[in-house]
Amino acid sequence: MDAQAPRPTPSAWEPALARLAGRFGERFSRVTAVRRHHGKDASYHPSADPDAVVFARTTAEVAEVVGLCAAHRIPVIPFGTGTSLEGHVAAVHGGVSIDVSGLDRIVEVNAEDLDCTVEAGVTRKQLNNHLRDRGLFFPIDPGADASLGGMAATRASGTNAVRYGTMRENVLALTVVLADGRVIRTGRRARKSAAGYDLTRLFVGSEGTLGVITEVTLRLYGIPEAMSSAVCSFATIKGAVDSVIATIQSGIPVARIELLDEVQMDAVNRYSKLSYPVAPTLFLEFHGSEASVQEQAAQVQAIAQDHGGGGFQWATRAEERNKLWQARHDSAYAAAALKPGSGFWATDVCVPISRLADCIVETKKDLEDSFLPAPIVGHVGDGNFHVAFVVDPTKPEDIAEATRLNERIVARALAMGGTCTGEHGVGYGKIDFLEAEHGPALAVMRTLKQALDPANIMNPGKVVRINGA
Amino acid sequence: MDAQAPRPTPSAWEPALARLAGRFGERFSRVTAVRRHHGKDASYHPSADPDAVVFARTTAEVAEVVGLCAAHRIPVIPFGTGTSLEGHVAAVHGGVSIDVSGLDRIVEVNAEDLDCTVEAGVTRKQLNNHLRDRGLFFPIDPGADASLGGMAATRASGTNAVRYGTMRENVLALTVVLADGRVIRTGRRARKSAAGYDLTRLFVGSEGTLGVITEVTLRLYGIPEAMSSAVCSFATIKGAVDSVIATIQSGIPVARIELLDEVQMDAVNRYSKLSYPVAPTLFLEFHGSEASVQEQAAQVQAIAQDHGGGGFQWATRAEERNKLWQARHDSAYAAAALKPGSGFWATDVCVPISRLADCIVETKKDLEDSFLPAPIVGHVGDGNFHVAFVVDPTKPEDIAEATRLNERIVARALAMGGTCTGEHGVGYGKIDFLEAEHGPALAVMRTLKQALDPANIMNPGKVVRINGA
Repeated sequence: MDAQAPRPTPSAWEPALARLAGRFGERFSRVTAVRRHHGKDASYHPSADPDAVVFARTTAEVAEVVGLCAAHRIPVIPFGTGTSLEGHVAAVHGGVSIDVSGLDRIVEVNAEDLDCTVEAGVTRKQLNNHLRDRGLFFPIDPGADASLGGMAATRASGTNAVRYGTMRENVLALTVVLADGRVIRTGRRARKSAAGYDLTRLFVGSEGTLGVITEVTLRLYGIPEAMSSAVCSFATIKGAVDSVIATIQSGIPVARIELLDEVQMDAVNRYSKLSYPVAPTLFLEFHGSEASVQEQAAQVQAIAQDHGGGGFQWATRAEERNKLWQARHDSAYAAAALKPGSGFWATDVCVPISRLADCIVETKKDLEDSFLPAPIVGHVGDGNFHVAFVVDPTKPEDIAEATRLNERIVARALAMGGTCTGEHGVGYGKIDFLEAEHGPALAVMRTLKQALDPANIMNPGKVVRINGA
Repeated sequence: MDAQAPRPTPSAWEPALARLAGRFGERFSRVTAVRRHHGKDASYHPSADPDAVVFARTTAEVAEVVGLCAAHRIPVIPFGTGTSLEGHVAAVHGGVSIDVSGLDRIVEVNAEDLDCTVEAGVTRKQLNNHLRDRGLFFPIDPGADASLGGMAATRASGTNAVRYGTMRENVLALTVVLADGRVIRTGRRARKSAAGYDLTRLFVGSEGTLGVITEVTLRLYGIPEAMSSAVCSFATIKGAVDSVIATIQSGIPVARIELLDEVQMDAVNRYSKLSYPVAPTLFLEFHGSEASVQEQAAQVQAIAQDHGGGGFQWATRAEERNKLWQARHDSAYAAAALKPGSGFWATDVCVPISRLADCIVETKKDLEDSFLPAPIVGHVGDGNFHVAFVVDPTKPEDIAEATRLNERIVARALAMGGTCTGEHGVGYGKIDFLEAEHGPALAVMRTLKQALDPANIMNPGKVVRINGA
């Protein structure tokens, strides 16, 4: 079929969908609730149901579905756990959602090489439960118990990225089903290679628009000998952020350094029945040998005191640490609970760390002048922060106000040399910011998309628009 | 001009070359010695002279040259310092070499953000001299004082990669002149981003085949408070390699951990008039706080003793450390000096570290049975090692033997899940190994090349063959 021809209307897809129904039986569904679940992620963005869902179990099955859809130019949308935040899984042009949660095997763990290969549907908690007895862990933690395929597809990061990097640094290789059903392996298990173009990094962050990730080879780390967590509140946001900057610039290998503003701390206290000071607060974690953790902690305490940081509350035992971090992990739910009946619209931007204090302080001025509650939480060691607009999705004025604030936040981050998203990705929610961010480089992204998916069937309408759609 | 039409013959290029001569004056050359210098790198590979050389000084000038060459389908070969090792700069299809050594400005250093932007011709030593007074450094050290544009283009790494990563991890963004003369910026200074396809990583390691890199934005690091180096010899190669594996698996953040086999140590002793034991030897370096360096050193000493490592010789003062590492850095010259009148053919492979001992031991059996001297040096913390075949390039039997041994080494690395090159790159020397390494993924690389350079003018004949050439 001519790749440039107009896409057939959905009614022309029926014979192909019937073939999929025959082939996959109970693992094929057109039930409304199933389609609805697969067209909706964890964001406020309007969902869009796919026409059908296939529950695949193997790479070969994914290749079979993609091959059939390619022959009929039916859009294909990969689905992991549906925890993305920019409408990544919405079937905005209809089509078939391929649910990869059944690709749930841990293929191999190479403890000596500190790597593993898992199928795309394995979640990060499933992997870490499997690894724990071997003294290993996979550090990337975006909050949700996301699938590792989805985390690779969205270039996820999270609280540990300041120490361990993002999915960009921690994916060694991928198995990918291309837009025509071919299956490739993007790399090998060697820690480094200079043998040709970096296909692994091309597919990491491509959000299903260049192919479907079915296996992921990941770097692993030894569980540190010692771990220690702390909470410290500050008189001002600037004091907290400047402490982070000084910590990073000193080369202290902090494992986590997270900022919650006073709005978020108030929400956390209410939601989790805690009594932290309602003030800008850093949550910290140190990993290493006993001696190294103590040294890091002492260094950061001294830095915090120089910037108006109050007494540190420490937690070293695992259950204490988990309790401390639970408050951080619940922050989005705590935010939503600020206004009963509301949801949250989470946005994120990332700026060079020297601009972080200015960026957050200016953003807070915007937010203080708004009627929407909007706590700030940040992976501030990376220069990355989130704003959770607490909105009632049925109220157009809430959505309009969040849209206005979001546009200001993105424009400010771009003006400071930053990016419109540090970790949530583009989906369709941020697709129209890429022109401002990338300028002429956006045309190169479009060229790559058209080269690898000439018929635009792979998660169309995400990351880059093709012919305006 | 139709991108699929046959390339015009070099005689048809004369009008375009005349225009370049008029435009660039003394910065355009067709002098034989200049052309020869630009068609030859630091490898044994036969050189191939370009038809002309342009000494560019700005991104705009590079864009102008590429635009003119594109209009006439003249190949363009970027040239930095000519220190590549797989024939990367050879003008195998003729064309214009663009020498970027005149793009030598350090554009900005953002000390607070631990990043900098330099033009492509700035060398790593030039950058580090500039940074020293600010307490910062750029760690990637491939041995040669290469240009940072060339290091990005070849995805260079070297001795520090085990701690600090390779160019893949340390390039934040690039300015690139595309095959049609367009100029793009591949990313921003934010530490992380999920905003679209990872163009930075696509161009890192693309060896000039997708575009000409003209500016590089790099991560920087604070000069560690303490540094300590050591040398330790072992009874067996296996003991040395197993010590490395145990060190990496223990999560000790060693900054350098380099293996020299007994052949190389003998060469080093002769060349540098030293008296190290002629035995497999590790060269190590530790970075961190005083306490952390002492702790790391004690841990590695204990590991080495468990694996038959002899007494450590330590160096902590800068000049002692430099002297110790000079022996390592001179290893290639020391190898060549083993056979007067010879050069060296350096190959490298990289395997998962669990296979490293087997891979090196089996390789040494091959080498012991050969008439060619061939010392081994390895960045063993990454699973990466080099073999330097000491060859007389005028003797076909030397080249035939090195070819045979190289093919066996690559095949063994691939069979062990490794790569045909950990850091030297593909050039034209390793182009025919990519099929075995990548299988169907090689076709994807070819698709990307054809999408971004449809007329195949960007360093043709390197990385991927187009239409067999």
